[in-house]
Amino acid sequence: MASGKLQSKEIRLVSRPQGEPALENFALATVELPDLEPGQVLVRNAFFSIDPYMRGRMNEGQSYVPPFALGKVLDGAAVGQVVQSRDAAFPVSAWVQSLCGWRDYFVAPGQQLRLIDATQAPPSAYLGVLGSTGLTAWVGLREIARIRENETIFISGGAGAVGSVACQLARQSGCRVISSAGSSSKVAFLKNQLQVDHAFNYREADPVEELRKAASEGLHVYFDNTAGPQLEAALASMRNRGRLVMCGAISGYNKPVQGPRNLALTIVRRLRIEGFIVVDHLHRMAEFLAEAIPAVRAGKLLHQETAVQGIENAPQAFISMLRSGDAHIGKLVIRL
Amino acid sequence: MASGKLQSKEIRLVSRPQGEPALENFALATVELPDLEPGQVLVRNAFFSIDPYMRGRMNEGQSYVPPFALGKVLDGAAVGQVVQSRDAAFPVSAWVQSLCGWRDYFVAPGQQLRLIDATQAPPSAYLGVLGSTGLTAWVGLREIARIRENETIFISGGAGAVGSVACQLARQSGCRVISSAGSSSKVAFLKNQLQVDHAFNYREADPVEELRKAASEGLHVYFDNTAGPQLEAALASMRNRGRLVMCGAISGYNKPVQGPRNLALTIVRRLRIEGFIVVDHLHRMAEFLAEAIPAVRAGKLLHQETAVQGIENAPQAFISMLRSGDAHIGKLVIRL
Repeated sequence: MASGKLQSKEIRLVSRPQGEPALENFALATVELPDLEPGQVLVRNAFFSIDPYMRGRMNEGQSYVPPFALGKVLDGAAVGQVVQSRDAAFPVSAWVQSLCGWRDYFVAPGQQLRLIDATQAPPSAYLGVLGSTGLTAWVGLREIARIRENETIFISGGAGAVGSVACQLARQSGCRVISSAGSSSKVAFLKNQLQVDHAFNYREADPVEELRKAASEGLHVYFDNTAGPQLEAALASMRNRGRLVMCGAISGYNKPVQGPRNLALTIVRRLRIEGFIVVDHLHRMAEFLAEAIPAVRAGKLLHQETAVQGIENAPQAFISMLRSGDAHIGKLVIRL
Repeated sequence: MASGKLQSKEIRLVSRPQGEPALENFALATVELPDLEPGQVLVRNAFFSIDPYMRGRMNEGQSYVPPFALGKVLDGAAVGQVVQSRDAAFPVSAWVQSLCGWRDYFVAPGQQLRLIDATQAPPSAYLGVLGSTGLTAWVGLREIARIRENETIFISGGAGAVGSVACQLARQSGCRVISSAGSSSKVAFLKNQLQVDHAFNYREADPVEELRKAASEGLHVYFDNTAGPQLEAALASMRNRGRLVMCGAISGYNKPVQGPRNLALTIVRRLRIEGFIVVDHLHRMAEFLAEAIPAVRAGKLLHQETAVQGIENAPQAFISMLRSGDAHIGKLVIRL
């Protein structure tokens, strides 16, 4: 601190997980922050996002985003407040969203930040229901599935970040919503908080049986957050011309999964299976927020989050999330 | 014959195959044909079609067409000539197409028949390149894949009935065509007759390696006639926003197949996988024929068929086709 420079803690990826990530894949480091250049802003993060897709970036090899580099800080969505600024568009105290997660403070050009309106909703909501998470659910239902009123939809992983928004948006669009989760408290959340029409614990119940019971006339839409046996069960339950939205595949992030053995149903039932990535749809964010902010303010769209305190607990929170255990419901964020 | 009634031979399904069909699942029977009622036509079949999809109809359970009934004659596409007629629209000697295959003669209302123009092409071509088979390839490429010039497409089962038409139509649309088949003579046919850009024997070569070699920048489109390891290899080779047309899944018709373990690539590569059934598109037949008949007449669209002589050989021909052996290239028909 002799130089008087500000220090920041950050989480680095120090080795690539084989299968399930372990704490030793991560390290907490302290770095000195540089002085601001013209156009730059110093931000103190208040929350950063922990997302399943980050597991893919921990592997080697190109995907739709580059892999995390070994020995470097991880990144991802974060919200925080401007502490110092050399960009007039980002005054001190302004709330901003960035892709500079997994650290306390950072310096970045203002043009890489987006102002958020913390008077409309709690700042962390911009990582969840009012962020890419919410947009993912909205795009998946509207653009990919093209849901219509009175359709029956099955949303796996309904207590997760995207799933919990998708359940609500589908219900508000007049769909019958069936959803699944991996613990009884999550199933209770689906039933009581999200008020889905039918919810089940996929670890205890047979998804094929549950869908037969809850959707005796079949599914118009399946919104996949899990892949694995739930995808196979959904395929078996699709109506003719059903649509399957491939949004996430969390069951296969740590270990290889078997593919659905009944994929040939795609032919006889004329199914459409379509994958998407929210980064292709970020230009729809303003349109989405114009709908979602009033809904959140009116209490019609629940921002469900689990906030874990302290940057040092981020690796364990990430590991637990991939186990789909009981600890986290809704969006998982680290509070700093 | 005391009554003077005409007799017809027919093939019946007498038991449901478990796995690979066997000759004892079929029986040859002789039936007496009824006298014609007003509006009815007596047809002598000249050719009937042997198709992979018929395997699915031999199982119990509803699919997009009802299952074949036990103890009853099989059916499927056929072409033949009118022998007697009580429908003025179908004069004696007219060539007609019907769904009354697997028999020598049949009596049906004229309204269930379609006249074909045997002066334009050999009658059996209306079972292949100018029939549902050709329409299947055309719809799959145009409506489902929406192919564009200069795209790279992989067509599995390219020496089969639909595959051989798809290879030609794709090439004529300016696509680079990669195709596969299950024997060296079929591969030679793909290269020499259909002039695809790259062909390989999927039983001997690794599809993943072949696609890496032949499509180093990835596939825009995969036209699936097989499912199984070739589908998995195609998924691994798809470009971002690639389209997979699910047309057939012959590798799984006799036995369960493993699903593709890499289906989650659908997400990161934003793939669209879409199945279709030609019966939903029969209203496009006239439009298709307006293109295809001149192409066949000009020698630009090859009608490749294998004709097996004699109704009594139909069961064995069907069994062999599902083995994807060396015996049949192109459309498989029974000549009566």
